[in-house]
Amino acid sequence: MDIKEIGESNLIQRIADNYRSSHSSIIVGIGDDAAALKVSSQNVLLTTGDLLVEDVHFDLSSTDSYYLGRKALAVNLSDIAAMGGSARFFLVSLALPPHLSLAFVDDLYRGMMELADECDTHLVGGDTNASPLKLMISITVLGEAHPDNLLKRSGAQVGDSIFVTGTLGDAALGLILLQNDPTHAAPATLNALTSRHLSPLPRLKEGKKLADNHLASAMIDISDGLLIDLERILTASNKGATVFLSQLPRSKDFEQNHLYPEKTKFDCALGGGEDYELLFTVPPSKERELLRLGTTTDVPVTKIGEVNASQKLVVLDHEQKPYPVADLGYDHFLSMR
Amino acid sequence: MDIKEIGESNLIQRIADNYRSSHSSIIVGIGDDAAALKVSSQNVLLTTGDLLVEDVHFDLSSTDSYYLGRKALAVNLSDIAAMGGSARFFLVSLALPPHLSLAFVDDLYRGMMELADECDTHLVGGDTNASPLKLMISITVLGEAHPDNLLKRSGAQVGDSIFVTGTLGDAALGLILLQNDPTHAAPATLNALTSRHLSPLPRLKEGKKLADNHLASAMIDISDGLLIDLERILTASNKGATVFLSQLPRSKDFEQNHLYPEKTKFDCALGGGEDYELLFTVPPSKERELLRLGTTTDVPVTKIGEVNASQKLVVLDHEQKPYPVADLGYDHFLSMR
Repeated sequence: MDIKEIGESNLIQRIADNYRSSHSSIIVGIGDDAAALKVSSQNVLLTTGDLLVEDVHFDLSSTDSYYLGRKALAVNLSDIAAMGGSARFFLVSLALPPHLSLAFVDDLYRGMMELADECDTHLVGGDTNASPLKLMISITVLGEAHPDNLLKRSGAQVGDSIFVTGTLGDAALGLILLQNDPTHAAPATLNALTSRHLSPLPRLKEGKKLADNHLASAMIDISDGLLIDLERILTASNKGATVFLSQLPRSKDFEQNHLYPEKTKFDCALGGGEDYELLFTVPPSKERELLRLGTTTDVPVTKIGEVNASQKLVVLDHEQKPYPVADLGYDHFLSMR
Repeated sequence: MDIKEIGESNLIQRIADNYRSSHSSIIVGIGDDAAALKVSSQNVLLTTGDLLVEDVHFDLSSTDSYYLGRKALAVNLSDIAAMGGSARFFLVSLALPPHLSLAFVDDLYRGMMELADECDTHLVGGDTNASPLKLMISITVLGEAHPDNLLKRSGAQVGDSIFVTGTLGDAALGLILLQNDPTHAAPATLNALTSRHLSPLPRLKEGKKLADNHLASAMIDISDGLLIDLERILTASNKGATVFLSQLPRSKDFEQNHLYPEKTKFDCALGGGEDYELLFTVPPSKERELLRLGTTTDVPVTKIGEVNASQKLVVLDHEQKPYPVADLGYDHFLSMR
């Protein structure tokens, strides 16, 4: 059997099933946004790694290396945010094609390091190698959290509300615009939407605030799409949910873009991915405190649905009818078939 | 300027110069075998990452995936050993070509996990992705050490003796045999030498013993070759050294191989690389204790030279004449010119 036949998520599940360790220092192992490890009596160590591969995750012909550097780090920091932790250190391993320019590598690092500074995270190591053909970027981030404040995927309860930070679908709509109609969009709108695709901001402050104030019962970051990532919370928590299409938070620029039908825009918000917003569940008793806290930050939080016992994930449209959500999934391997 | 023009070591130096952080929690940052980070009052966290790229570090046509898995982890564990630490956890990120067989990936993991078990190290995460063409393996290992026992590259003093664990040149000679004359070598010898190339054993126990007993002043693991790695200790310590060719420890199988001239074998021992033995400097006052301890372990230690104030690295042959060592270096980028 080939790798492309089994698919990415099956392969990861297979590795997790075969090799999940039950060592007493591992508080959270394979299968969450980051691993949580007991290394001292006070804090847990968080660690997460992501690999970006040319022509799978990015295309050199259309990629600005400064933004590629920022994004490569951002997607990892977002995983630390999703645990309610603080990012501390990171390692960068690069496989570099020999004809890549030094200016490209310099800009890649400049992007990474600017975001690292903004997030008070420090480069401590890694590896640099030649690559015969394609550029690859592997980043590992180390962070920390208080053990009582860790936010896993598995804590959602029946009756919890489902919230997201920020707005949904901007990055996906920005990518569609970049790939198809950049000249037809209003420059300001194009800029706002594509910047969400090119330069996502990890919600570290927001994640830590939710964790420190014990406001959420489960949390994940939206990397592969709202529905896929919500399904991960529901599977880990053994619950179901209803999401209301009318409540999905949309940015002004997203609203004002009329190049695409509403159906396309809903699909961007539900399944486009790369929002890097936090998706979290909130017990009823904490909702008022969350909303009070939400108004004090730059990044709004919006209630988009409810957790139930159904074992199903249903999206209801503006008339409370089920919205078709088949094929909003995303799998790197399956997409290569 | 292209990447291949600047060369790997210059590029790493450039990154280190531009981005070395002086954060107070970073005890050892970029530029040693592993980073050492203060995360609790008792222990320091060690972390190191290595990236293996198909057709740069290994060739799928001649690689057994079980051994590739072992080796990919071993080279990282060796970096933890070189700090005098214990390995605890690791993350694995893979970029997998779609036509790779699942059996290959299973064997890769089996190799990694067997070595992990032997070294009491636990898989806690990573990433799995498609790769358009080549296989890539990125591993990050987390370990720990007592802050007073850390062995850096920078502690060598004038008058210290230079020691290595085990024997030198086996892996390099094994690789030459594999690539050229496998059928001409005696099977037992071929097996012993090639297994040093295919399945290096990280010297974790030995490194920790040296560290815990405060026997060494500086330490590194030999990955790129004795002379290159010794030069790294000397540069970090601002010292010079003399190495005696007659004292280089050679295995029985290395001695008994007569397919190649002595010159080739010396070059394997001095510059072949991938020995993954520990190279360390020992103050005169500690030498007797080291040798006493050395006889109680399976892995011998051998004195091969002396640290001096000359700022030069000289190899003396059996007649005490300088041995020519030019071009024993190794640089992935330069080698692709």
